[in-house]
Amino acid sequence: MESKDLGHHISQQYNAELEDIRNKVLTMGGLVEQQLVDATKALVEGDSRLGETAITGDVKVNALEVAIDEECSQILARRQPTASDLRLVVAIIKTITDLERIGDEAEKIGHLAVHLAGMEGNKQHFTAISNISEHVQGMVHDTLDAFARLDVDLAVSVAKRDNNVDEKYNGITRQLITYMMEDPRSITRSLDVMWAARALERIGDHAKNICEYVIYLVQGKDVRHTTIEQLEKAARRNN
Amino acid sequence: MESKDLGHHISQQYNAELEDIRNKVLTMGGLVEQQLVDATKALVEGDSRLGETAITGDVKVNALEVAIDEECSQILARRQPTASDLRLVVAIIKTITDLERIGDEAEKIGHLAVHLAGMEGNKQHFTAISNISEHVQGMVHDTLDAFARLDVDLAVSVAKRDNNVDEKYNGITRQLITYMMEDPRSITRSLDVMWAARALERIGDHAKNICEYVIYLVQGKDVRHTTIEQLEKAARRNN
Repeated sequence: MESKDLGHHISQQYNAELEDIRNKVLTMGGLVEQQLVDATKALVEGDSRLGETAITGDVKVNALEVAIDEECSQILARRQPTASDLRLVVAIIKTITDLERIGDEAEKIGHLAVHLAGMEGNKQHFTAISNISEHVQGMVHDTLDAFARLDVDLAVSVAKRDNNVDEKYNGITRQLITYMMEDPRSITRSLDVMWAARALERIGDHAKNICEYVIYLVQGKDVRHTTIEQLEKAARRNN
Repeated sequence: MESKDLGHHISQQYNAELEDIRNKVLTMGGLVEQQLVDATKALVEGDSRLGETAITGDVKVNALEVAIDEECSQILARRQPTASDLRLVVAIIKTITDLERIGDEAEKIGHLAVHLAGMEGNKQHFTAISNISEHVQGMVHDTLDAFARLDVDLAVSVAKRDNNVDEKYNGITRQLITYMMEDPRSITRSLDVMWAARALERIGDHAKNICEYVIYLVQGKDVRHTTIEQLEKAARRNN
């Protein structure tokens, strides 16, 4: 299925409605992406004002989720979509839930940034956080790209990158545990860094979920709870 | 809307299909509930075999999620439901995502239980875990009950109970931090207990999400991202 195939309805109005929810999802995705960029920058640079921006950014994201959900329900009721249109609407209903939860995690990182900005202490772990957060930001960006272009190959490659996030996360955790053992006074601070790493790891999971919905949307095949190999096999069917 | 109103279609087959997905959701919920009971019992009693049961239990839950999703798509395509039937299908699509993630968190607790069962150390924090887990199990149980009986009042009361879970979780975290500072050798072990508490806290969030879908399903009003007061107001409209 190509992106242009979505504009195949005789009813111009129906085309416009489908196009509109797709665009709203991308707007929501853009907001979430910015929220994530702000939150991690706030954390790494100790910028509590930027942390606040990431926190308040969540209100718009939540409002968009509710609006898109409502529009999806209306399209289901009035247009009674079938085949790829139906898959689009169902995929969007699921995608926005994960986007909203990425926003929640970014909000949490914002709170941690504000909290950590007010604390004295070693900043050595921020390099590791910086590294995992760039990786996760890249995943979220490419996930939205895969959704916008209905690009199954990109969706598969992003889903695969989630393993790297898990490895990086485990590395950070091990490092922080060592650090806490060496200097118990750093425990509160280290735990905050750990929660931030955890939030980033979960954002990677949510991005992967969205990639699976993109594959479902394009191929009509549910690839959740399958291995990366099965996922690639499903993608190849398209080519 | 009463539960019996769902059986209002002239097509017996359509009625049977709606009844069937509702039942499958309850079956899935029952499995998740058992998985959670097993996982927390395994954790508190140091029973690694029961921990394994909770881990492997996730396979069935995942399979049911995919099957129910497929059935929902088929109903949307073939029956083109409107009004309360449409809300039922949309609410189910969302509910099973949260149920599946409750299963994931229970699986994590299962892994932690297996890990902790092999470790020496103080079991004093298990009382606190036992307490929060009973609370969360009660929430999950009543959430499924609210879904089964389309009971908005119960859904509101369960959603309210999520605040208690958050309080209990914060209490456990504070306690564990103190403990880690006093005895740095306990850090690894304490972190495992903390992750388990975190998983339980998240399960509370997912239960609350499902309660919000029940309110949406019955009242046709989206109550996500609103306050408990607004939620109660929405519920009162029903009476």
